[in-house]
Amino acid sequence: MSIIKYYWEDLVPGSTRELGSVSPTAEEIRAFATQFDPQPFHVDEEAAKASIFGGLCASGWHTCSMAMRLMVDNFLSESSSLGSPGLESLKWLKPVHPGDALSLKSTILESRPMASRPDVGLVRTAWDMFNQHGDKVLHMEGYGMFRRRTPASPQE
Amino acid sequence: MSIIKYYWEDLVPGSTRELGSVSPTAEEIRAFATQFDPQPFHVDEEAAKASIFGGLCASGWHTCSMAMRLMVDNFLSESSSLGSPGLESLKWLKPVHPGDALSLKSTILESRPMASRPDVGLVRTAWDMFNQHGDKVLHMEGYGMFRRRTPASPQE
Repeated sequence: MSIIKYYWEDLVPGSTRELGSVSPTAEEIRAFATQFDPQPFHVDEEAAKASIFGGLCASGWHTCSMAMRLMVDNFLSESSSLGSPGLESLKWLKPVHPGDALSLKSTILESRPMASRPDVGLVRTAWDMFNQHGDKVLHMEGYGMFRRRTPASPQE
Repeated sequence: MSIIKYYWEDLVPGSTRELGSVSPTAEEIRAFATQFDPQPFHVDEEAAKASIFGGLCASGWHTCSMAMRLMVDNFLSESSSLGSPGLESLKWLKPVHPGDALSLKSTILESRPMASRPDVGLVRTAWDMFNQHGDKVLHMEGYGMFRRRTPASPQE
């Protein structure tokens, strides 16, 4: 049974959060790509070496999924999250290679009540993932819905 | 050995493509979410029934990954694709439930040469995924880089 520590009211624009790190193996990169994105540079070391990426690299969807896991484990699981309607930006800035140490940081950009639901608020968040060299490999900006600690009064 | 049928020049704005369909099982939905997005409504039937989704539903990243597999199998594997720098929009419009039959359609929105690389062109594509009821469950707009059949001349 999880306990909710973070409601919509607690997600203050400008606040940042360190969300831990993850390091994919070559086997994990190939396993994900074999299932969902079997392009040569994600599944075949030799083909990847000959590609513009210079070596095996993770599917962009794998990178997003690893970021999601960090977000869930280190924040959403303790929050009143109700899911997400989507993202307004997603950038794969650098290839992710086996053994890279990827750390995730989030920043709350904007917060507003949801007109249609007095018990829910919307938050816009930036996600930035960096590798061990300090290069940003992933940037996303997206929306999350969170239950409010105190629903808006009808007059609000 | 794959043969390239589609180069950048072949990707004409306004053209559409049917990219096949996929139907996730409850087991696949839970397996993906257990690894990457272990929120209750993606891994636990009972919790999902009590949630705003009304039943177990796929992680949005799973939906994107399933769309990617259709895109690779039915188009990218026969193209000169060099990967993607990202998306400018990603919308999870409806929940995806076990047994849903999801079909993917793509539309080329825009095409332009890449100033920095005479042998590569950029294409902006809309991805739309529908369920068996005709509801759109996923909409994405993003960029892909494709090798040109004929590199631009220096004067171009």
